Amino acid sequence: MADDPRPSRATAARLSLYLRSLEGWRRDGLVTTSSRDLAAALGIGAAQVRKDLSYLGRVGRRGVGYRVADVAGAIRAALGINREWSAVLVGAGNLARALVRYRGFSERGFRVVGLFDADARKIGQRVEGLIVEAVGDLGRRVKALGAELGIVAVPWEAAQEVGEALAATGVRGVLNFAPAVLRLPAGIAVVNVDLTIQLEQLAFQVQAARE
Amino acid sequence: MADDPRPSRATAARLSLYLRSLEGWRRDGLVTTSSRDLAAALGIGAAQVRKDLSYLGRVGRRGVGYRVADVAGAIRAALGINREWSAVLVGAGNLARALVRYRGFSERGFRVVGLFDADARKIGQRVEGLIVEAVGDLGRRVKALGAELGIVAVPWEAAQEVGEALAATGVRGVLNFAPAVLRLPAGIAVVNVDLTIQLEQLAFQVQAARE
Repeated sequence: MADDPRPSRATAARLSLYLRSLEGWRRDGLVTTSSRDLAAALGIGAAQVRKDLSYLGRVGRRGVGYRVADVAGAIRAALGINREWSAVLVGAGNLARALVRYRGFSERGFRVVGLFDADARKIGQRVEGLIVEAVGDLGRRVKALGAELGIVAVPWEAAQEVGEALAATGVRGVLNFAPAVLRLPAGIAVVNVDLTIQLEQLAFQVQAARE
Repeated sequence: MADDPRPSRATAARLSLYLRSLEGWRRDGLVTTSSRDLAAALGIGAAQVRKDLSYLGRVGRRGVGYRVADVAGAIRAALGINREWSAVLVGAGNLARALVRYRGFSERGFRVVGLFDADARKIGQRVEGLIVEAVGDLGRRVKALGAELGIVAVPWEAAQEVGEALAATGVRGVLNFAPAVLRLPAGIAVVNVDLTIQLEQLAFQVQAARE
């Protein structure tokens, strides 16, 4: 496993979580950290952390631990987020409006460059700096905008159709907020966001604290 | 670890993911499954799956595998989601409106029973079946509504204050959508939803496919 130069998806997911902790520690002024700190932050074993960090190349020094800034930078490079990514958003409803305004996206280099909807009443509306465009123009506009990612923020009934429309434009990845499983051609990465999972985890923690 | 009757948070997170796969398989008409199927669905080892499922008591039969419905039911019981949970939502902006309409919450037994905002212009507005109430009434209303969970859907600048207001009402857990770290009293469970993490994972997969 550790000989594979590319982290698995499970490792990539943990790298994102390490990065959140490291960013918090950096804001608090911490300069160095250890696999034990990261393990405690995620509630996993230190051996797993060391294995995960082995994908990052040389980021630690024996006895000194890891420099917070170095590990954060190496994780960004491994995840491919040490550069900007541009995305189009399909569905100009409440969720899309919230996402366009979501501070975290722009802070981490994800730019929403286009906003599309099938509803004629929404087309032409301004949302932050974007004008809602017709979903029929998606193919032409994705190319013009150079967008690499698509975000599906439509009701579940429309999600498969919108996913296919995005796949046809040449975007390389789709982030799906609709509670529906998208079946897209191989070669298109799909990540499903399930907003209920965290609510389930909260219920679990509340219940566990009561017992 | 396996002697501890209570799953860790990391195990609980995997239980939620197993449940998603099991629900999909059930919709597709599958009756039985195996630790190997679940391992493949999550991209982890079958030994880890078997260890996680050991928290559920007797759900498998030697040589027959697991019944999809039995494992799903046992996971719901372990997570504490084999019953309804009621939540109040603070912040009546676009994200809150999207969450109130989000099909996945009600499908899994999470009911939003109250909606609150500090903005006098929003108070009194109707969002689906709910009327936006004043955040100043939170304490009184949470008790009247019997809500156990609070959801923070305000801008990050207001998140800490709203989190403290929720904690003072007696809710047992807070789901935080604001990109801010909440510091709440011990005894209140807090789960932070970071909408950027999945976008990072998508970027990673797209980059990995290119290499």
